[in-house]
Amino acid sequence: MGQLPNGVARRIIAAIKEQIHSGVYQPGDRLPSTRAFATDWGASRTTVTAAYGQLIAEGYLTTRPGSRAIVAQGLGVAAAPTASSADAPRYLSAFALRLLALPAPAAAQTARIADFRYGDLSGADFPVLAWRRALTRASLRRAPQLRYGDPQGSAALRNALQAYLWRARGISCTPDRIVIVNGSQQGLDLCARLLLDPGDPFVIENPGYVLARHCFVAAGGVAVPVPVDADGLRTGSLPTARLAYVTPSHQFPLGSVLSAARRRALLAWAARTRAYVIEDDYDGEYRHDIAPIPPLQTLDPASVIYAGTLSKTLSPTLRLGYLVVPAALSRAFVEAKRLTDRHTPLPEQDALADLLASGAYERHVRSIRRRNTERRAVLLQALADLCPAVTIAGADTGLHVVAWIDGVAADREPAIIETARAAGVGLYPVSPMYDATEPRPAAAGFVLGYAGLDPDALRRGVAVLATVLAEHRRIG
Amino acid sequence: MGQLPNGVARRIIAAIKEQIHSGVYQPGDRLPSTRAFATDWGASRTTVTAAYGQLIAEGYLTTRPGSRAIVAQGLGVAAAPTASSADAPRYLSAFALRLLALPAPAAAQTARIADFRYGDLSGADFPVLAWRRALTRASLRRAPQLRYGDPQGSAALRNALQAYLWRARGISCTPDRIVIVNGSQQGLDLCARLLLDPGDPFVIENPGYVLARHCFVAAGGVAVPVPVDADGLRTGSLPTARLAYVTPSHQFPLGSVLSAARRRALLAWAARTRAYVIEDDYDGEYRHDIAPIPPLQTLDPASVIYAGTLSKTLSPTLRLGYLVVPAALSRAFVEAKRLTDRHTPLPEQDALADLLASGAYERHVRSIRRRNTERRAVLLQALADLCPAVTIAGADTGLHVVAWIDGVAADREPAIIETARAAGVGLYPVSPMYDATEPRPAAAGFVLGYAGLDPDALRRGVAVLATVLAEHRRIG
Repeated sequence: MGQLPNGVARRIIAAIKEQIHSGVYQPGDRLPSTRAFATDWGASRTTVTAAYGQLIAEGYLTTRPGSRAIVAQGLGVAAAPTASSADAPRYLSAFALRLLALPAPAAAQTARIADFRYGDLSGADFPVLAWRRALTRASLRRAPQLRYGDPQGSAALRNALQAYLWRARGISCTPDRIVIVNGSQQGLDLCARLLLDPGDPFVIENPGYVLARHCFVAAGGVAVPVPVDADGLRTGSLPTARLAYVTPSHQFPLGSVLSAARRRALLAWAARTRAYVIEDDYDGEYRHDIAPIPPLQTLDPASVIYAGTLSKTLSPTLRLGYLVVPAALSRAFVEAKRLTDRHTPLPEQDALADLLASGAYERHVRSIRRRNTERRAVLLQALADLCPAVTIAGADTGLHVVAWIDGVAADREPAIIETARAAGVGLYPVSPMYDATEPRPAAAGFVLGYAGLDPDALRRGVAVLATVLAEHRRIG
Repeated sequence: MGQLPNGVARRIIAAIKEQIHSGVYQPGDRLPSTRAFATDWGASRTTVTAAYGQLIAEGYLTTRPGSRAIVAQGLGVAAAPTASSADAPRYLSAFALRLLALPAPAAAQTARIADFRYGDLSGADFPVLAWRRALTRASLRRAPQLRYGDPQGSAALRNALQAYLWRARGISCTPDRIVIVNGSQQGLDLCARLLLDPGDPFVIENPGYVLARHCFVAAGGVAVPVPVDADGLRTGSLPTARLAYVTPSHQFPLGSVLSAARRRALLAWAARTRAYVIEDDYDGEYRHDIAPIPPLQTLDPASVIYAGTLSKTLSPTLRLGYLVVPAALSRAFVEAKRLTDRHTPLPEQDALADLLASGAYERHVRSIRRRNTERRAVLLQALADLCPAVTIAGADTGLHVVAWIDGVAADREPAIIETARAAGVGLYPVSPMYDATEPRPAAAGFVLGYAGLDPDALRRGVAVLATVLAEHRRIG
């Protein structure tokens, strides 16, 4: 990554195509000079000239002697509506055009036997009574007036989170650096808006979390994918970028933990280049075999924006999350939250503060962690028993594993998903999590989320999966 | 508005200053040529030249012979941090710089006797039992898996809203044009992101709703204030703009209703210039004396984005609102909502769907409308009895009135607020709702919200107000 000229050239080609497809560059627009572009990217001019040459050969750009490259005529925005003008938007912002050019997310499935969708939790795990009691207690404490709350989040919740983050994750912060958000997705979106301008490069793990990447791309950022291995993000040659998005506790989706040496390297890079690191601790509560590693945030609170969520312990439907931000960014995040939606709903904030302060939340986490450790054991045993030619990655922490289907090519993922769906099992591929311009493993792979399924459904789902895979091995 | 050259020049001057203060134009940047600027604004070149001349005289711009105007050196961003570098952000996006350059919102007050803050509702008016029952019923209907919901909003809620909007507001729309949002503020923010690029002009009522204006300015839009009178927005000479934000049912804050002729003129302008109209129907449920007027949306569903909220009938703390968007924009709004925060919390969506479908919501609205009609009568009577030299505007609809203090100058608003606060009454001025570059009434004025106060507090609050005003009249 970043050290091979042809890798850089390919990234430049992909970035320019993306900007053309998303409408940032319009037909007839002049591109920056190769010299200016090379400076912006920290690339050599030879590399940029090669990239431009490829784009000219492919018909994306045209040139006139002595002049800068121009975006070719007749290249429409990818998502431009083709219906009659009555059905077309009158106009859209550059943000909207970039947004609509993003690949569509995988459609939700309904699965008869087992849906391995990552992110689902079992309805039976939700602490229905404790939550209802907490909501009721909060409603009884309500003031005589119903009024807009603090955009940063209620003081009660931020105080309770401060104590929880210290106990559970070793994070030391004052409540004025905590911002309550509607799930970590809103936290990422606020980061994108506050920290990225169109054209700004950002580092993202490859493979990585698609909705984070989409957030930053929609804001106009240019993705610089950096590969991950068994020690997490490869920090050997990090490019210049505004920010890096990482999942150090449990790389999504592959499951590695960022090593101590790479943590230091990443933070040194951030301090040296004055970049920010967004640490998504999306399932920091789930560790099955290894000792907890403190968040990056604890090592350098001035460089790291820490994003936490309640979607993996309470419910994704509640839309509760929080950020711990560097002191210098606190005001920007609070004002952005105010304009975005004023504040996160107060009943949920109050109920969560109550659960945290009473200790009920941590009791619940211990209970759901035991249940998910059991689900994981059932899943791994069933896979070992029934699916011999499958390699499992990332099982030490979290609520999902990645299953690599040895000897079955990646391009068979859609066909396998179709067969599985017909047999009542929902499967989700790893391919969309890889950058399309970068190399990836040859084998087909699937992300298997297990937190929404009971042991019986897990066993039956794996049995169906085994049959489906056997069938595809015969064909392929 | 817009017809007098010096009005246009003043707007151009204000817009350029705003762009410089917010960091869109940096020191050393070249401005567009007067010819290009005039074309963009639909202004004469003479007007633009006059505006540039004024900015040169004020030291904002410099020129060299035969060259375009340049932003002067030494003009910092207004909100640039002045603390030590450890306390300064490493960098911020243009959005963040514009955001931080906005004037700070009025601080919330705690008032011993009565707080006339607009937007508050009485806690006693919230249907605690009905809401709790609806939440419980919804939690019993939950699926075996807790999973992310539809970004557009739950089908049950959109179906229930479709029926409600037809019954209550005469809006005919399919559920695929409804988008559930976290209060109307999020709806406005989505509009800003999807429909405005930096430099795009937008029409906004003057005076008008500050958080709407801020949303659009933070997105990079350039405000074009258009005055309102007793018939609402003056549509005589609407400038070219991307969109217009209006409150046609009850102009905020002055309370006029947009006349039928001006409705037609506004929609004709939108159709002719291919602009969108954002109709904020923030308190459409409250009409005390006049017959309901159908929303603009019913006249031209392809031009109008309709924004509704539950903040004035249930509670501002729940963060529930909805948009009805033109069919051509539906996909853009849904994808933006997905990246912004995935979806609005499901428990609230489910409970609201239940209240709407059972008829409990409309019973509640009838009840709270009666209570607010009573509060309004008490307030108006108390003002008539105790504050003779006060002119009341906008009392026919809604949950607030504007009180103009005859014979007391606008610049005394802060002093009156201070005295009132010391006497236990929270007052909020109209001045921040006026565009700083436009003329406004000479008298001091206050927005008096009454929905959070019981009749006794209203009477006592007005009594204090009368004393405070009498004191200031003696001084002033």
